[in-house]
Amino acid sequence: MSEIKYTWQDDSPFLDERLQSYSKSGCYPFHMPGHKRTPIEFPNPYTIDITEIDRFDNLYHANGILKEAQQRAAELYKTKETFFLVNGSTAGILSAISVALPRLGTLLMARNSHKSAYNAVNLRGLETVYLLPSATEFGISGSISPAHVAQALEDLPQIGAVFITSPTYDGITSDIRTIADIVHAYNLPLIVDEAHGAHFTLSEEFPESALDCGADLVIHSLHKTLPCLTQTALLHVNSDRIDRDALENFLSIYQTSSPSYLLMSSIEQCIRFLNEEKEEQLAKYMPQLKSFYRQAKSLKHLQVFHKDSCEPESCFDHDLSKILISVGDSDLTGQKLYRKLLHNYYLQLEMCSGHYVTALTSLMDTQEGFQRLLHGLKEIDDQISLSSPRPASSPVIFGAKTPKHPAHLTSNDIYQPPRPQMPIALAMEQPAESLSLKASTGHISQEFIYLYPPGIPLVAPGEILTGKIIGIIDQCKRLGLTVEGLSDRSNQSIKAVKV
Amino acid sequence: MSEIKYTWQDDSPFLDERLQSYSKSGCYPFHMPGHKRTPIEFPNPYTIDITEIDRFDNLYHANGILKEAQQRAAELYKTKETFFLVNGSTAGILSAISVALPRLGTLLMARNSHKSAYNAVNLRGLETVYLLPSATEFGISGSISPAHVAQALEDLPQIGAVFITSPTYDGITSDIRTIADIVHAYNLPLIVDEAHGAHFTLSEEFPESALDCGADLVIHSLHKTLPCLTQTALLHVNSDRIDRDALENFLSIYQTSSPSYLLMSSIEQCIRFLNEEKEEQLAKYMPQLKSFYRQAKSLKHLQVFHKDSCEPESCFDHDLSKILISVGDSDLTGQKLYRKLLHNYYLQLEMCSGHYVTALTSLMDTQEGFQRLLHGLKEIDDQISLSSPRPASSPVIFGAKTPKHPAHLTSNDIYQPPRPQMPIALAMEQPAESLSLKASTGHISQEFIYLYPPGIPLVAPGEILTGKIIGIIDQCKRLGLTVEGLSDRSNQSIKAVKV
Repeated sequence: MSEIKYTWQDDSPFLDERLQSYSKSGCYPFHMPGHKRTPIEFPNPYTIDITEIDRFDNLYHANGILKEAQQRAAELYKTKETFFLVNGSTAGILSAISVALPRLGTLLMARNSHKSAYNAVNLRGLETVYLLPSATEFGISGSISPAHVAQALEDLPQIGAVFITSPTYDGITSDIRTIADIVHAYNLPLIVDEAHGAHFTLSEEFPESALDCGADLVIHSLHKTLPCLTQTALLHVNSDRIDRDALENFLSIYQTSSPSYLLMSSIEQCIRFLNEEKEEQLAKYMPQLKSFYRQAKSLKHLQVFHKDSCEPESCFDHDLSKILISVGDSDLTGQKLYRKLLHNYYLQLEMCSGHYVTALTSLMDTQEGFQRLLHGLKEIDDQISLSSPRPASSPVIFGAKTPKHPAHLTSNDIYQPPRPQMPIALAMEQPAESLSLKASTGHISQEFIYLYPPGIPLVAPGEILTGKIIGIIDQCKRLGLTVEGLSDRSNQSIKAVKV
Repeated sequence: MSEIKYTWQDDSPFLDERLQSYSKSGCYPFHMPGHKRTPIEFPNPYTIDITEIDRFDNLYHANGILKEAQQRAAELYKTKETFFLVNGSTAGILSAISVALPRLGTLLMARNSHKSAYNAVNLRGLETVYLLPSATEFGISGSISPAHVAQALEDLPQIGAVFITSPTYDGITSDIRTIADIVHAYNLPLIVDEAHGAHFTLSEEFPESALDCGADLVIHSLHKTLPCLTQTALLHVNSDRIDRDALENFLSIYQTSSPSYLLMSSIEQCIRFLNEEKEEQLAKYMPQLKSFYRQAKSLKHLQVFHKDSCEPESCFDHDLSKILISVGDSDLTGQKLYRKLLHNYYLQLEMCSGHYVTALTSLMDTQEGFQRLLHGLKEIDDQISLSSPRPASSPVIFGAKTPKHPAHLTSNDIYQPPRPQMPIALAMEQPAESLSLKASTGHISQEFIYLYPPGIPLVAPGEILTGKIIGIIDQCKRLGLTVEGLSDRSNQSIKAVKV
């Protein structure tokens, strides 16, 4: 392949200038948004940017062109009703949880949920019971066990709704069909954050969509994996268990009263694109993607995750559009691999964790992109063979090395560690004290502490700061991973409930 | 002037097509957004639409290019710190109220506030004490009296923060300088929703900005009156009374975790435009605007609002960029005037109320626009002289004909009608029953009922549905005004707290 020149050195302090020069830099985007900066035809934004004037409908009481546009989205996804979101999946998750159960109710939720789900818990004063994902061989969080859902619902009659994130940021799905049946036996609503799976219905090569598995409310981010502008999403109502008018009201609470027609127009373009050009795009994309996986098998040290390489009893599925590349037996860290791909090969990946990196692909990716990624990985892999093997105490952070949960554990062991001492909202209203990380051991946290990405909390307010958790936070920081949530900007202290 | 051809007949069901054909229709926008569809230079949005990758910072923990961009906005507005908002002023109002006082606290707020302020009250379980705006001769809401603020704070020590909307949707400002002094004497924070006044600092011809009057938190919508894309806004922190870290956290709760770089780039463009081209634009705009007011004096029946025509004791100011045109002594209604301007003169106005219409102008308006508006008004005015005079029982809805509040009224009269029976959040959680509007008299509302625009509630949850209120709702509906909030889509019934 031709040599790539990555000459992007723009230090313009102006966002628009830097964005434009980045766009021309030759750096290939293996990250969101899913349109991959393809110049899809669009007029000058200012010329079509209007507010809700005559003949252009009203998003929160849609009765005209926006109603029809939303109906076309519902038809594409074969669901009852679909709402356009202009404040991202965030608004969909906040609204879905808010409508699914009353203030102060109890939510059974996957621990590996996006922070917006925790924010909804906080805003509505909810109690939480957690479902822990299984571990996987690859060192990432696995799926939520239907048996754990069943056990929680049997043990805790106060549970009013269930919230599952599937797929995860890594592309791991849970068995939503079985979970939905269990939840519906209690006549409760199941919300599935499928933000990373808006493309699932496009091909049978992808996991089954929660919409087809009977989930009641499903959130789809459009910009993550499809050709749509950032900040756009869909909220699907997929059953009669949801009060749609109350839902619409929550959407008008969590979203601007002046929704952008640019974003809504982009959503509509995306739906039309899928209706009209899906087959053609898939016919190009799927063979390229599969060819990548086939060729990546020849890597000697780096290891590309594939569900077939997992233990046979694993009950999850994996979205192959998300390419997870582990540092394997090399002495690299995730961050080092990420930096090498960026600086030597001009490949901007989505994420690095302690021991792997993630390349997001979409049906807008090109043959050139896949070739460049494979080329970069092969060269890096070849260099590894000359270097020292991976040290024994290699850092593995997220879900890795956590024990699996054998069936004989009690329900407390399964879905309540770390056990909340008080609801999130209550903890956040208590008098606070600021403690050094070390001194905070044993105290009750008043903060969320996240690894970002993926933005899943290590600690939530109201939970005990155990020595183990403090150790993990410390390790993440030393690895240069982004630890968010600590209100102290120097990341040295933590807000705890004052004793 | 040359004859205008308004040929827009596009019935495309697709939003993007209809937006583009509207953009070419020749219809002149006297409405938001303030860029007036001027084709400001902007690349294809998809080519620069990215997510928070390396070198592009993180909006909620800004430390690089976004921090600098926000600092430039703070410098322009001469404030302590400024946050970019991508979920509109809505997100700023929700965050400002959330940070200003604890959950379940008591907020002293102007009754004529945007629904997002009421939504914040609901989300945080706040109690409310209302400040009623004065009435004006013109039949629109006037200003909030500093004396009423002082009396409320003296009477009710539980008040934790004060929220004022200034200017109103009609452009009426309150005496924020005096109010700020009163509020600060209690060491409480004053939040000013100045969404419609982001242009105030541009010229001394506009009212004084709340930022210069000492308000602690000020919300500016950028798209309403300035050249910026819809859904963009700023939240200014203007004092040390606010916990900025807690505020940033609320912003990350109410806004998407994938903020649009298009919207942020547009904000930055707008700030740069104001820094670089403000004087030149103002030198064109202000003379045109003043010339319009001068020439409008010759209208014989229609009446253009100007603060100079008010009673001398009125203590408010008016933003002359908002042109309010009353039907005066004619037999027109606001809606009829609005329709005539649209269908006969291709002038799309912002709003019609029972007896007036509103034309929003900005520094992006053109000489042609002002001339067309004046021409249309003069022709309509000339036709009126031939028709019958206005009927005696003319419908006047908003604020009009409500009595002024003489100093001898008790504090209950001044800032608590309609007296809440329970906090908004509590009312919304009670068991509900659906009643016909007529049968609901005397019951406690479980809904917000708004006139939209401007989106200010006639009734909030927890308030008694008096016969008078039901009568006003009925009248608005008969006038064809948009009554929002009734969960019943046919607008025939209302949800009340079950007795």
